Amino acid sequence: MTKTELRVLLRDFRKGKISEQSLLNTLSALRFESTGFATIDHHRHLRQGFPEVIFCEGKTPAQVADIAVKISRGGRPLLATRAGKSHYAAVKRKIRKAVYNSTARTITANEPKKPRDRDRMILVISAGTSDIPVAAEAAVTARICGNRVETLYDVGVAGLHRLIAKSDLLFESKVIVVVAGMEGALPSVVGGLVDVPVIAVPTSIGYGASFGGVTALLAMLNSCASGITVVNIDNGFGAGFAASLMNKKV
Amino acid sequence: MTKTELRVLLRDFRKGKISEQSLLNTLSALRFESTGFATIDHHRHLRQGFPEVIFCEGKTPAQVADIAVKISRGGRPLLATRAGKSHYAAVKRKIRKAVYNSTARTITANEPKKPRDRDRMILVISAGTSDIPVAAEAAVTARICGNRVETLYDVGVAGLHRLIAKSDLLFESKVIVVVAGMEGALPSVVGGLVDVPVIAVPTSIGYGASFGGVTALLAMLNSCASGITVVNIDNGFGAGFAASLMNKKV
Amino acid sequence: MTKTELRVLLRDFRKGKISEQSLLNTLSALRFESTGFATIDHHRHLRQGFPEVIFCEGKTPAQVADIAVKISRGGRPLLATRAGKSHYAAVKRKIRKAVYNSTARTITANEPKKPRDRDRMILVISAGTSDIPVAAEAAVTARICGNRVETLYDVGVAGLHRLIAKSDLLFESKVIVVVAGMEGALPSVVGGLVDVPVIAVPTSIGYGASFGGVTALLAMLNSCASGITVVNIDNGFGAGFAASLMNKKV
Amino acid sequence: MTKTELRVLLRDFRKGKISEQSLLNTLSALRFESTGFATIDHHRHLRQGFPEVIFCEGKTPAQVADIAVKISRGGRPLLATRAGKSHYAAVKRKIRKAVYNSTARTITANEPKKPRDRDRMILVISAGTSDIPVAAEAAVTARICGNRVETLYDVGVAGLHRLIAKSDLLFESKVIVVVAGMEGALPSVVGGLVDVPVIAVPTSIGYGASFGGVTALLAMLNSCASGITVVNIDNGFGAGFAASLMNKKV
Amino acid sequence: MTKTELRVLLRDFRKGKISEQSLLNTLSALRFESTGFATIDHHRHLRQGFPEVIFCEGKTPAQVADIAVKISRGGRPLLATRAGKSHYAAVKRKIRKAVYNSTARTITANEPKKPRDRDRMILVISAGTSDIPVAAEAAVTARICGNRVETLYDVGVAGLHRLIAKSDLLFESKVIVVVAGMEGALPSVVGGLVDVPVIAVPTSIGYGASFGGVTALLAMLNSCASGITVVNIDNGFGAGFAASLMNKKV
Amino acid sequence: MTKTELRVLLRDFRKGKISEQSLLNTLSALRFESTGFATIDHHRHLRQGFPEVIFCEGKTPAQVADIAVKISRGGRPLLATRAGKSHYAAVKRKIRKAVYNSTARTITANEPKKPRDRDRMILVISAGTSDIPVAAEAAVTARICGNRVETLYDVGVAGLHRLIAKSDLLFESKVIVVVAGMEGALPSVVGGLVDVPVIAVPTSIGYGASFGGVTALLAMLNSCASGITVVNIDNGFGAGFAASLMNKKV
Amino acid sequence: MTKTELRVLLRDFRKGKISEQSLLNTLSALRFESTGFATIDHHRHLRQGFPEVIFCEGKTPAQVADIAVKISRGGRPLLATRAGKSHYAAVKRKIRKAVYNSTARTITANEPKKPRDRDRMILVISAGTSDIPVAAEAAVTARICGNRVETLYDVGVAGLHRLIAKSDLLFESKVIVVVAGMEGALPSVVGGLVDVPVIAVPTSIGYGASFGGVTALLAMLNSCASGITVVNIDNGFGAGFAASLMNKKV
Amino acid sequence: MTKTELRVLLRDFRKGKISEQSLLNTLSALRFESTGFATIDHHRHLRQGFPEVIFCEGKTPAQVADIAVKISRGGRPLLATRAGKSHYAAVKRKIRKAVYNSTARTITANEPKKPRDRDRMILVISAGTSDIPVAAEAAVTARICGNRVETLYDVGVAGLHRLIAKSDLLFESKVIVVVAGMEGALPSVVGGLVDVPVIAVPTSIGYGASFGGVTALLAMLNSCASGITVVNIDNGFGAGFAASLMNKKV
Repeated sequence: MTKTELRVLLRDFRKGKISEQSLLNTLSALRFESTGFATIDHHRHLRQGFPEVIFCEGKTPAQVADIAVKISRGGRPLLATRAGKSHYAAVKRKIRKAVYNSTARTITANEPKKPRDRDRMILVISAGTSDIPVAAEAAVTARICGNRVETLYDVGVAGLHRLIAKSDLLFESKVIVVVAGMEGALPSVVGGLVDVPVIAVPTSIGYGASFGGVTALLAMLNSCASGITVVNIDNGFGAGFAASLMNKKV
Repeated sequence: MTKTELRVLLRDFRKGKISEQSLLNTLSALRFESTGFATIDHHRHLRQGFPEVIFCEGKTPAQVADIAVKISRGGRPLLATRAGKSHYAAVKRKIRKAVYNSTARTITANEPKKPRDRDRMILVISAGTSDIPVAAEAAVTARICGNRVETLYDVGVAGLHRLIAKSDLLFESKVIVVVAGMEGALPSVVGGLVDVPVIAVPTSIGYGASFGGVTALLAMLNSCASGITVVNIDNGFGAGFAASLMNKKV
Repeated sequence: MTKTELRVLLRDFRKGKISEQSLLNTLSALRFESTGFATIDHHRHLRQGFPEVIFCEGKTPAQVADIAVKISRGGRPLLATRAGKSHYAAVKRKIRKAVYNSTARTITANEPKKPRDRDRMILVISAGTSDIPVAAEAAVTARICGNRVETLYDVGVAGLHRLIAKSDLLFESKVIVVVAGMEGALPSVVGGLVDVPVIAVPTSIGYGASFGGVTALLAMLNSCASGITVVNIDNGFGAGFAASLMNKKV
Repeated sequence: MTKTELRVLLRDFRKGKISEQSLLNTLSALRFESTGFATIDHHRHLRQGFPEVIFCEGKTPAQVADIAVKISRGGRPLLATRAGKSHYAAVKRKIRKAVYNSTARTITANEPKKPRDRDRMILVISAGTSDIPVAAEAAVTARICGNRVETLYDVGVAGLHRLIAKSDLLFESKVIVVVAGMEGALPSVVGGLVDVPVIAVPTSIGYGASFGGVTALLAMLNSCASGITVVNIDNGFGAGFAASLMNKKV
Repeated sequence: MTKTELRVLLRDFRKGKISEQSLLNTLSALRFESTGFATIDHHRHLRQGFPEVIFCEGKTPAQVADIAVKISRGGRPLLATRAGKSHYAAVKRKIRKAVYNSTARTITANEPKKPRDRDRMILVISAGTSDIPVAAEAAVTARICGNRVETLYDVGVAGLHRLIAKSDLLFESKVIVVVAGMEGALPSVVGGLVDVPVIAVPTSIGYGASFGGVTALLAMLNSCASGITVVNIDNGFGAGFAASLMNKKV
Repeated sequence: MTKTELRVLLRDFRKGKISEQSLLNTLSALRFESTGFATIDHHRHLRQGFPEVIFCEGKTPAQVADIAVKISRGGRPLLATRAGKSHYAAVKRKIRKAVYNSTARTITANEPKKPRDRDRMILVISAGTSDIPVAAEAAVTARICGNRVETLYDVGVAGLHRLIAKSDLLFESKVIVVVAGMEGALPSVVGGLVDVPVIAVPTSIGYGASFGGVTALLAMLNSCASGITVVNIDNGFGAGFAASLMNKKV
Repeated sequence: MTKTELRVLLRDFRKGKISEQSLLNTLSALRFESTGFATIDHHRHLRQGFPEVIFCEGKTPAQVADIAVKISRGGRPLLATRAGKSHYAAVKRKIRKAVYNSTARTITANEPKKPRDRDRMILVISAGTSDIPVAAEAAVTARICGNRVETLYDVGVAGLHRLIAKSDLLFESKVIVVVAGMEGALPSVVGGLVDVPVIAVPTSIGYGASFGGVTALLAMLNSCASGITVVNIDNGFGAGFAASLMNKKV
Repeated sequence: MTKTELRVLLRDFRKGKISEQSLLNTLSALRFESTGFATIDHHRHLRQGFPEVIFCEGKTPAQVADIAVKISRGGRPLLATRAGKSHYAAVKRKIRKAVYNSTARTITANEPKKPRDRDRMILVISAGTSDIPVAAEAAVTARICGNRVETLYDVGVAGLHRLIAKSDLLFESKVIVVVAGMEGALPSVVGGLVDVPVIAVPTSIGYGASFGGVTALLAMLNSCASGITVVNIDNGFGAGFAASLMNKKV
């Protein structure tokens, strides 16, 4: 609520257009709204293109379906991550147009027909084939947030020619998400080639001293290439969401 | 391009089927497509507004001064981080216009007269007063990259009213850098209020189980707010540089 | 046994009021009692309102039922934590009035009809819905110890307006238990708002670099808000018990 | 601001008693005040008996002295922790009555003449002589918050008779702070003897696998005795402050 | 011994300068000095009272049974640890007198009829009931090595009177094995009471920040009581074996 | 105090042989003495051959000298560890016969003229030359406790022939202390050769992934040789003390 | 090569100053020098004797079989690691000559009939029987790369005579792979005996403080024997492959 | 060989049944088979080209000089690592031809005039300028072991064109040592380009979450490129020595 809106409201009250009770209610509500939190929260969801995301792990299919119905009401975009097949089945029964991506393990609905801006492409890269599920989660997330997304999988540092063969994609993108497990070296190489934000996503892929993704995480945090930021292990959603925020021409 | 293709190309050229320029273009592209790196590297620096950054720790004042002279040649912007007073003295002798920021511990020169775009403001927030040096490094970095930067210091989560009193700044910014040590909670709170990219910078401020910033780092990686990405402990430069990349309207 | 009581005992013996054997027995018993341990132990249980708690994990239903019978004898309050349905079934067969809380995974019986003091309320807060089981364990524990307990769930730092909407509860409470996983930031925010003891309970909720609750634990130990103390990961019982001790007007 | 106050305000406005601008200002101010934070913060300090604490590490003597003057204005109690002799010298020059405790490394002034309630004693125990500085910081903190504080030093678990010889103190106290390094076992033993809140403070005392206090910290978090809560390594201030909150009969 | 020295020695022998016995002694010593290992190994097993121990985890029942038959040949004592019921069944089919201890998860046979020396008692103490399996493994091991073993279970530091009630056992023992999980404090208390070797065994009992026994392990390594040595987490066998070595009057 | 002694005491009281006050005093004293702690403590020191050890780190020379005088009164043995030259100078001024071992960094006095039993030898082995200070601390400790001690230094596993050349010493010893840094492999090799207790002492010698002795500590805890127990990193004193307990023919 | 140089080169060719072959060579080299990667990659596989290895974990039997068919085309050697029986069954259906090693969990085909060079033997040693699967993976890998491989299992440091009995094998080998879990001491002992490269492979064998192989890994990295290099935990393939590279007489 | 067999052998010799030479051979073999170590050790040093290396850290200049004199006797090569200037000064006084490399911090003498084999080149690569000291230590070590060594510094992954510009060196080398700190990604890139052994050396260069080289170490152990082995953090000597072993055509 801006100062101007507030001023109008007060004049209406003075003129008797609205009752004391009505103004009181508005202002009482303001008690929360004036802090901005509720308002912000509300606006933020509208602006970001979807109101809330369902993290399915630890939720029953029924719970997920219930929340999904509420979120997707009125054609609003729906995103559920870490969804199993049973979650999907439950959602599908209630939301016929729900789509399951078995690689990304996501359920979506009401995805924007076309991206906000075709020229602003987000590129999602994965180092190995085992990293693809996390990369796919990032791609699905960025797409449902209204971005054009391209993917480039299996271009790890031990075979750099595969990455270079696709350098056009690199140079065309506005934000790059790089997903890698094991030694997590790919973001450094990509970050050294481009001048757009690079979001590094460590994955839990590996064994022994990979410590469930900790090695990749640490490597990414210590990258010698500038401009790289990092999200939590296996957090494809977080990377896709952050990429979308960075990609918006606000 | 196979040897055979190459052979055909050369014969065509010899036979006059294709012009010298055309062959030259093809081969040049080849050079770009393949070695490419040097070129890219070159362009990248031009686009980013400064060619290289000097990390002074472990370098002698003389070494830093020598590199600084080379980098700043032709009025190109200069940034040296983790610089001590002796580093500055050595640089100052050679580059009269060099400026030292004793809080950020940076040496700069040839900073752009004014930001690329005044409407695209980067906000740098610190949780405690002890976090200010890292925040200042981020701010200096973002400024010399050509951004308008505002700062908001000492607004930790144990006194939220201080943050809220400045909510206008929050909502006006395009990218936010949040610097915090100890429990590293501030990025989660900020991330819950805004819809622009938030870069979290853990600092080594704290004692005991803060483990030199590891606690803050982990907390930031596990933030319950979406859209937050993280850089290394005390890496103010990295945050400022990434913020600059995110802030450009490419 | 005070010096005065001892003096009386000895005089009775000298006067022949009690036999040598009787005095000997009393004093032998004293061999433990004089150290105070046994006595203390005994008194302590009486004062605290329940004699012992059963940690069900790793115990068979039959074992739990046996111990439960002994503990609840004479209408004494019973609390069993980390109880599965089979534990409950076994207890229920022997103690008809036993109650199972499937969220908290507790079995209770002989809960005090009403709290010791309605004015002294303990508030249990959880950051996320996944943290509720641990919060519920804390609430059940504090209630069976004779406290009035209120709960406030799903008020994490990424949506602070939800917490503020219930600020009355915060200010009315005498002790607050704050349960949070992931980045564990909520206790810092709550601790910055109130002036009563805040007990922080990290949960194992999260993934990747949350390390089974270690991140939340560390964040809580490093809280920038004063007056916060911490218990072990997922230790809802410990928090509820400590809250009860703090809430007593001894 | 209560609903009633708000109603009066609006009526005054309607009746023309106050101008639109005046109402607007009040409501705008409400934008911060309604969140309560500023107010709460203010009240909280008053209630707790001292407004802010200075953590001297990383601050210059001049900075500490400046803050100390502001805080202690009007006879309000002053507490500065981790203070060196040079900090004290600087403070002493401006605040003549400032007192330095070289063991606790604290500077205090305006300590309450006598405790709020002599019957509510806080006991501070240390396991070894090397733990005394941290214990002393806790004791100084609790005292300046208005509590009666007793201390019991060098009563580690390898010589339990020393603890038992002072059992009267244990049983008389309302809150107990137990400070221990190395294996951190003392809180478990104390917690098994008493029925009041026990705050465990791990110290960085030890070598090798004590890992700067981590071993003691972990041991305390895993205590088999109920009712123990833990603060950060070497955080004597935090323990003393929390003990004071727990000791108040609010 | 060089080739030349050897040659001289042999010539002296041939010439009768030194006796066969003398040469034999020199060469035998050589044998001892050098290969030595096999011999030592052989003697060592005889002296220690059993030739080899079977660690069943990761071995099939058939494998265990085969090894058990070889080891127990000629009435030699048999010890198999971490044995499941199926391991026992397979062994039992081949060795009728084999005995299974389901608590310790051990299979034994040919246990010495009576201990080497009844006066030299090894005491095995456990802090909690959950620690008993590890304690039992230690007890079984020490017994089959020919020692008199007594046990004292569930005497954790949060209820010291239980330990003190059995202080006679403490003072009578020649070696004490103390088994504890969680905070691992019991060895420190026991070590402060006795003047015989105390072997501390951390167990993986606990949750959260007990880290599968690491907390107890670290606490034991940092014990403030002198004379305590430590074995690996859950290594009841190792403790029982070491206790047996310490208990022998060699 | 046995039951019989108690009975006699009571009869004497009844018969008027002792006054009520006298009996009361005896029984009151019993309040501590009956727990045995004080008594035990007293006896323990006498039996062990020295009353208390001074850990000099963190103590001033004056403090150390004061304690040393008290301890060594009446010709009792004195041991101070981690002593610097200034500690020694201070002690020397008060105790003329004090001896400083600059390798072990120990101050001793009143060492027993000859060992309790020359046949019961403790062998202290070190892997590298850098481990000698810790080994020397162990040797000094065991000697002042009244043991015959031999040493064998610089016999690491990368040159096993050096160890084998001294195998006589190995087989002659009753207890062996093995001190090693880096990979900590030596105790396993020694433990495979002998049938006496082996105490492993990790040292902080090494760099990089030796983590200040943690690698050696872990290796020793995981030794594949049976009968090995471990003490804290660099804890030569603890090893020497434990070895002395193990070496006594109690 | 600059554009100008390129232009000169082309003109020379057009003018007939240099032959087509000469230009072709120059440009081909350019291709190598720059894109180089693909070419190199190609040559590398040919030289190394097999084109790619399949890591089966996380792949379905069908996926593995498909890749296996492509790789083994034309009689090229096939290696699939971490293969289960179902993987093998699927491969076997398509590649009749495929061989499964159930210990090493490998699928191979088209193994070279005989090693490149019988005199250059690779020795694979394991410390315990539980380490054999990892050792076998190393052996299988080295063999299919064309090396003569010998194995020596169950020769851990606690029974050195077993290793010494086979010293001929040690001295005959050109590269040695040493596989060990628990304390990981064997590579140090072997490295002290030989003067060829020793590759240490830690295994996840052990319990408690072995931390899934981390202890063995750290011990190997800190080996006091020179010339030892280390691979990841359980990485038998990596060790076998590196050993093959070291064993080639290039 | 049993005593009896030995006795028979000796009698046969005395009786002239076997020649002195034959007996000598048998006994010599025995010496080799058993003590063997000393001999082996001796041969090994001769073969490797230098007898022992001095690790100067923790040694006084005088100690280093003494050892250096012994080692370099008779013109044998000398290598001392981690040497300060004072170490060098002390050595220089006794060994005039000693050479100090201030970057590598090595002292050498009697370096072979020319490499064993000019065709077998070892390449030492460093990622950053700060990694050069460790790389130089590796280079110096490999050179004094008799190898031709080339170096390539400052070719980190964030500027790959620098590495590619020197690809000739890569393809010409027989063994490659890659030294890198921070994220440790360079070995993976190099390992993907070549088919010779790659030894990765993590350095302690970095800050924050580089944890003194642990991040680089972990990344290298998890490299997705095959054929890479790893040494301890900052262990340039170990890498150079291992490279020399790998480079010999034995």
